[in-house]
Amino acid sequence: MDKIIYVVGFGPGDKQFMTMQAVEIIEQADLIVGYTTYTDILKAQFPDKKYLSTPMRKETDRCRLAVEKALEGNTVAMVSSGDSGIYGMAGIMLEIADEMQANVEIVTVPGITAASTAASVLGAPLMHDLSLISLSDLMTPLELIFRRVEAAASADFVISLYNPKSRKRVDYLEKAADIIMKYRDKGTPVGIVRNAGRPDQKAWLTTLSELKNEPVDMFCVVIVGNSQTYIKNNRMITPRGYKINEQ
Amino acid sequence: MDKIIYVVGFGPGDKQFMTMQAVEIIEQADLIVGYTTYTDILKAQFPDKKYLSTPMRKETDRCRLAVEKALEGNTVAMVSSGDSGIYGMAGIMLEIADEMQANVEIVTVPGITAASTAASVLGAPLMHDLSLISLSDLMTPLELIFRRVEAAASADFVISLYNPKSRKRVDYLEKAADIIMKYRDKGTPVGIVRNAGRPDQKAWLTTLSELKNEPVDMFCVVIVGNSQTYIKNNRMITPRGYKINEQ
Repeated sequence: MDKIIYVVGFGPGDKQFMTMQAVEIIEQADLIVGYTTYTDILKAQFPDKKYLSTPMRKETDRCRLAVEKALEGNTVAMVSSGDSGIYGMAGIMLEIADEMQANVEIVTVPGITAASTAASVLGAPLMHDLSLISLSDLMTPLELIFRRVEAAASADFVISLYNPKSRKRVDYLEKAADIIMKYRDKGTPVGIVRNAGRPDQKAWLTTLSELKNEPVDMFCVVIVGNSQTYIKNNRMITPRGYKINEQ
Repeated sequence: MDKIIYVVGFGPGDKQFMTMQAVEIIEQADLIVGYTTYTDILKAQFPDKKYLSTPMRKETDRCRLAVEKALEGNTVAMVSSGDSGIYGMAGIMLEIADEMQANVEIVTVPGITAASTAASVLGAPLMHDLSLISLSDLMTPLELIFRRVEAAASADFVISLYNPKSRKRVDYLEKAADIIMKYRDKGTPVGIVRNAGRPDQKAWLTTLSELKNEPVDMFCVVIVGNSQTYIKNNRMITPRGYKINEQ
């Protein structure tokens, strides 16, 4: 099997946040396939490459296209932001390649996930156990999403919310905050990063009770602290532990 | 403020998995500070740099050393594996710099966290909501750790276990598996990766009920699938959704 598709997570987008491996694969690929927004980000940095883009939500078509192009003899890089392995293209790519019974090797190339980028901007909010939850109910029952929010809140996880809001989902974030406040103080620190790691990045701090009033949209990652999280010098910090053993 | 400490996550260790930014900072730093195992990994790849290492569990001493060296005028890179922002050095570094009232800027440089690397090896197990839980009770009450395992299990999170076992904690992993099996089928796929992304990497698949018999140690990451996770062609795959809307 010498046909190969690399499923590359490129992090927030700028080359500096890509791994050496991701940069090398993009530079050497015959063809870069991705959602238009992502290929546009890469075109600006790798202008001499050949690109094929498909619209958002056409993931299965995009994967079929990648397989077809690989079978024609192209080394394909299927690209997406963040980590291709966390809410990324790795799974659907494996599923489609299998469905097509294509003799193509699928290699996942991990990247920096959005929670990591957002955390690095805010300070150090992810120093303890963490739940990543997407508030998009496009493919997940809303009841299950809120059950996860409640479970994570009840067990004092730091909670990082992906896809926190869209035009169709205006009140999910407020509902999530209400659920978390059943278990956590309303003054619990919350960090919001819009376009994390991108030129127009914006980051700010708020609290659980104020979260509903914040201008959050689909380009934001929201990080809710655990019971120990605090703000100092405008940085959001979750301590490593619960002070059982002092060092 | 021109004194600066970069808190750099270098992923599994090999340069190919570091971000361009991490490589550049390491190459340009006056001094690289870290736990001995980590500085040894970097020395092999950046042999001309100046290193200072301290033993494991001396994190606060290491941070004070970094601050002192920065105040002397050195640009310092405080290094650790994975993402410096997830169970990493970013938080303690901010805390110590604040405690010392040091006029030093702390910049977090994110890296690929162990769950991302392990997932890329196993297939695509992290395509849906995820909990990261450390089974180390060095600084966290064991009761809280198991409460988190139970909460994550009850709400069908994919669960990635860090520090799954050590010589002192021989039965925590088995207890965690027992808790998860209260909510999830005993045949639920589990992926184990030892030394993910390193030359002696080893990865294999098992099930929840068999997990207790696996040779897991502190160099492993354990990923427990959710109710939808399956194995196909020896790859562990968690589907993106719950098939509400077919595409």
